[in-house]
Amino acid sequence: MKIGLIGAGWIGEEHVKRLAGRVTGAEVVAVSDIDPERAAAAAAIAGARVVDTAERLIADPGVEAVVVTSWAPVHAEQVLACIAAGKPVFCEKPLTTEAADGLRILDAEQARGERLVQVGFMRRYDAGYRQMKAVLDAGGVGVPLMVHCAHRNPTQPESYHSDKPMVDTAVHEIDVLRWLLGEEFATVQVVVPRSTSQRFPHLVDPQILLLETASGARVDVEVFVNCRYGYDIQCEIVGETGTVRLPDPAAPLVRSEGRASYAVVQDFPSRFADAFDTELQEWVDSLRSGVPAGPSAWDGYAATVVANAAVEARRTGGVVAVDLPGRPAFYQE
Amino acid sequence: MKIGLIGAGWIGEEHVKRLAGRVTGAEVVAVSDIDPERAAAAAAIAGARVVDTAERLIADPGVEAVVVTSWAPVHAEQVLACIAAGKPVFCEKPLTTEAADGLRILDAEQARGERLVQVGFMRRYDAGYRQMKAVLDAGGVGVPLMVHCAHRNPTQPESYHSDKPMVDTAVHEIDVLRWLLGEEFATVQVVVPRSTSQRFPHLVDPQILLLETASGARVDVEVFVNCRYGYDIQCEIVGETGTVRLPDPAAPLVRSEGRASYAVVQDFPSRFADAFDTELQEWVDSLRSGVPAGPSAWDGYAATVVANAAVEARRTGGVVAVDLPGRPAFYQE
Amino acid sequence: MKIGLIGAGWIGEEHVKRLAGRVTGAEVVAVSDIDPERAAAAAAIAGARVVDTAERLIADPGVEAVVVTSWAPVHAEQVLACIAAGKPVFCEKPLTTEAADGLRILDAEQARGERLVQVGFMRRYDAGYRQMKAVLDAGGVGVPLMVHCAHRNPTQPESYHSDKPMVDTAVHEIDVLRWLLGEEFATVQVVVPRSTSQRFPHLVDPQILLLETASGARVDVEVFVNCRYGYDIQCEIVGETGTVRLPDPAAPLVRSEGRASYAVVQDFPSRFADAFDTELQEWVDSLRSGVPAGPSAWDGYAATVVANAAVEARRTGGVVAVDLPGRPAFYQE
Amino acid sequence: MKIGLIGAGWIGEEHVKRLAGRVTGAEVVAVSDIDPERAAAAAAIAGARVVDTAERLIADPGVEAVVVTSWAPVHAEQVLACIAAGKPVFCEKPLTTEAADGLRILDAEQARGERLVQVGFMRRYDAGYRQMKAVLDAGGVGVPLMVHCAHRNPTQPESYHSDKPMVDTAVHEIDVLRWLLGEEFATVQVVVPRSTSQRFPHLVDPQILLLETASGARVDVEVFVNCRYGYDIQCEIVGETGTVRLPDPAAPLVRSEGRASYAVVQDFPSRFADAFDTELQEWVDSLRSGVPAGPSAWDGYAATVVANAAVEARRTGGVVAVDLPGRPAFYQE
Repeated sequence: MKIGLIGAGWIGEEHVKRLAGRVTGAEVVAVSDIDPERAAAAAAIAGARVVDTAERLIADPGVEAVVVTSWAPVHAEQVLACIAAGKPVFCEKPLTTEAADGLRILDAEQARGERLVQVGFMRRYDAGYRQMKAVLDAGGVGVPLMVHCAHRNPTQPESYHSDKPMVDTAVHEIDVLRWLLGEEFATVQVVVPRSTSQRFPHLVDPQILLLETASGARVDVEVFVNCRYGYDIQCEIVGETGTVRLPDPAAPLVRSEGRASYAVVQDFPSRFADAFDTELQEWVDSLRSGVPAGPSAWDGYAATVVANAAVEARRTGGVVAVDLPGRPAFYQE
Repeated sequence: MKIGLIGAGWIGEEHVKRLAGRVTGAEVVAVSDIDPERAAAAAAIAGARVVDTAERLIADPGVEAVVVTSWAPVHAEQVLACIAAGKPVFCEKPLTTEAADGLRILDAEQARGERLVQVGFMRRYDAGYRQMKAVLDAGGVGVPLMVHCAHRNPTQPESYHSDKPMVDTAVHEIDVLRWLLGEEFATVQVVVPRSTSQRFPHLVDPQILLLETASGARVDVEVFVNCRYGYDIQCEIVGETGTVRLPDPAAPLVRSEGRASYAVVQDFPSRFADAFDTELQEWVDSLRSGVPAGPSAWDGYAATVVANAAVEARRTGGVVAVDLPGRPAFYQE
Repeated sequence: MKIGLIGAGWIGEEHVKRLAGRVTGAEVVAVSDIDPERAAAAAAIAGARVVDTAERLIADPGVEAVVVTSWAPVHAEQVLACIAAGKPVFCEKPLTTEAADGLRILDAEQARGERLVQVGFMRRYDAGYRQMKAVLDAGGVGVPLMVHCAHRNPTQPESYHSDKPMVDTAVHEIDVLRWLLGEEFATVQVVVPRSTSQRFPHLVDPQILLLETASGARVDVEVFVNCRYGYDIQCEIVGETGTVRLPDPAAPLVRSEGRASYAVVQDFPSRFADAFDTELQEWVDSLRSGVPAGPSAWDGYAATVVANAAVEARRTGGVVAVDLPGRPAFYQE
Repeated sequence: MKIGLIGAGWIGEEHVKRLAGRVTGAEVVAVSDIDPERAAAAAAIAGARVVDTAERLIADPGVEAVVVTSWAPVHAEQVLACIAAGKPVFCEKPLTTEAADGLRILDAEQARGERLVQVGFMRRYDAGYRQMKAVLDAGGVGVPLMVHCAHRNPTQPESYHSDKPMVDTAVHEIDVLRWLLGEEFATVQVVVPRSTSQRFPHLVDPQILLLETASGARVDVEVFVNCRYGYDIQCEIVGETGTVRLPDPAAPLVRSEGRASYAVVQDFPSRFADAFDTELQEWVDSLRSGVPAGPSAWDGYAATVVANAAVEARRTGGVVAVDLPGRPAFYQE
């Protein structure tokens, strides 16, 4: 599969390395970026060509599928161009920043009549979440009633502002819980604890996202992006007969100096390295059968609607209804 | 220390056994109960006398201190009588069912001018919570910002109604978190998930209690009293630099039939057996120095006010302010 | 039960405190020690009399039962005197240092015709070991084939010499495994790793004790008394269908500074505090029914024989047969 | 890298799938097997040619590197042929069954003057062992003094005989411990517990391998190939200041029906799936720089010498010296 990649920033370069060095059945043949030097650097990793614009890359007859890792506000136009060109596109999250753009993508893809879009929610490919889903699907804990999550980063740069805990960070939980629970969210509330002193003063951190699903299951997600001690993802699902908890990454227990301890992972690229690899490998594999099997444009749209509702909920302090239309039959699973 | 015990139901009989068999420095000399047979059975365990009314037991010159394990609605009058008699009284939780009665006790005790009342919140005596408090007090996780708790029972009888998750069950978390965090609660909200099908139909279960402290720390307490799988108490405190989690009770890990597993405790008397013993031992020990050192009448009053606010919050669906006056200097620690 | 205690060193004083403050149904009425000041200090804790010799204490009509916590080489004579006086005696381990003295005690007790002796192997009273025994006895892991143990101390004083890892330290595993497995040991071997540099130069540390039971089960016990990091007791029993592992003491998991950790206990009095309490409480309780139910003189004798064989095995480097006669019917359980 | 594979049995077919589907930078172009149908089936997976003999495959100019997954007794001749042809060869363990054949390989490779041989000890590529090595190399537990291992399989077929616990099973520990500890083994002893009843009657199972390194560190390896409950690999290294333990594979903790449990892996292909992938990927990557970086012919030879000594030790019941010559400079790391 000949891949063109748009957007050679950090995640773009990571995906080039991944596709070139760890994913089989694909090669990166073209790279574009608004910064030609950055495009050249990423292209060099894979021995790919530099193409000067996203439009030309998408139109390039030598490009069979596209990876979009550009700046989020331009995702929508690039994905729409891929759909127009009839080319499969893997778009990093978020699919769009505005829900209205997501609707345009849904319309375009349905009009085209074939599934072309996959969104980069890599947690669905994490072994721990997959094991949890297997337990749930086997009825191991009964019908889910509650989920308790925590999403903790050691720190964030000054540019990280108070909407980001929802749109950049908790959006991962929003997606993976939609997938685990198999239903949509209906309402959103955000509870705001006293902020930590270990942060830039403009930032509201931590924030606690409260979600209600269509069936009435309740989710709480602690989002704490300056927790200092590590990158830590926790998730416990409570069902009618039991609970299942996401495992910590396996790490050796060391007994030394009066304590038994194991290392906590320090960043998300380490925590989800295998998930990222699996995500792209399965995407490439799925293209052979013609249809991407991962998170769809609908999933990307729904996540944006919920995350945006969460931002509104924090700003207003109230409970916000998630304004999501019915899932089109085209996107039923 | 010669103890008189009022109320020979299940917990009363347990405390008689405890005082007779595992606590040193005390003996149960008198028992009263509205049911004379039950009184006689409990008295027989300790070789104690049966006294026909609570009033006479409290007045009995051979009784130096009183344990109140009667029906909750009569706690207030019995505790007031003990104060009037100048006798130390250990009252099982709740101190009172109505906040107004708690105020009467506070007034009476302050008028008397000496601390006589201790309330039976045994979790403060649990080794796990004490270890957590030591970590907190040593600054091991920084200033607390959030607490995540779960209080799960395998099942409850039909008489257990929808206010009880707050007034009987979460009240333990309310007390122990006041103690751990060292501050009062300011607001209460209750989130209600879809109820489990594994319950009597009249019961709203689970319920999630959201608390806000005076300083803005946020607490969530999952109360799930028909979780089927066991009696399970979880508590994680998230501070500015780290987190600390209540340990599960130590249990052997068994590898067998494809799984590595350990037993989950099935009831609160097993889970908190040592805490109950320690609670009464330390109470008896403290009486030698004249002042009970455990949860005070103020603690009992505050817990009732918060639990009652939680009931109101569930019924109204809104955020309820905790209507707690300033802590009298008499009760400062 | 009126108790006389002989030997007011560290463990003697601990037992006085325990009997005075945490064990019900007993009081220490008399204390003797070769050092009168030490005797007086211990006696003061319990409000007991000082008696000038062990002989007089044993003969004292006000003493109903005796606790022997004296220097190990005089245990035998003191225990024999108790038997001669027909008084129950709790003797700290080791029952005797020489196996021949153990045989004299067995003969005397059998001649007396009643069980009077209990030996202070407290691990049988530890909740973790008891839970393991319950799993074993319920067939939870099948017939035991192997046991892997570790007995680690942070450090030892200069007086601790190279026989002590077997006679003072591993002797606890020897006893508790006899009890867990329900059979005697047949052979002993000691494997000697390179010694740690973190010790006094005269000491051989660590040492690994290899035991074979009568039925052919195999046990390895790492004895490492200068492991630096803590006091750590590990035990895993491997049966025909599964394994069971002694739990670490429950301790809060703290996530901080890049690691998730829990504290390791630093000394045996902390690790086995509850076991010591339970041991003496059950001993006192058992005396009411007339017969001590804990480790018998036979258990004390067998442990000494095995530990002494282990010393010989280390010195000779070979496999040493455990020279144990058949268990007399008097000591069958 | 164009790969030819010899021996299309189970592990051969697994490696074809791996090289075709998960390893980048390599393709399987030729397969041979003594059973032409089996060769054809494996070749079909990768779209490779079938070559009728190992000799022709090795000589094939279209084959740049060889994977040997044939029957162990023919490994030596095939590896020697690869060396003679100057082609890199990845040989599944054991490199040879007879130590003398290993010496021939060492001589041939040294005579050739370049490193061509890598042996399939995949544990060195397991994330857990690598994390342990990182801890050791950073001085996290001090100088290693002891290692405790267990290697458990749920069951084995009737063809598995009593030498196999050492030559097929414990050989993995022999290799990975040589790598972790960075030194050779000097002596071997095997302790034989009573055999489990859950096995074919001819088999001696379990067996405990005791090893001594050149510096005097001591290793015990429980090998129990009919443990029933799962495939379980345990390893704890005890150093002068602490211990480090191989983690169990990460798995969700499920609380249900009175127990908290996680699944135990059931077979080695699941347990070491990632290690196998990494092993071949790193081998392919290393060939670009010309020199395989994994376990060398020396490592394969040393493992065979130690495993064969362990067989002798079990048969004789004594301590057997490991008869290993000095490591040639050619194989120094």
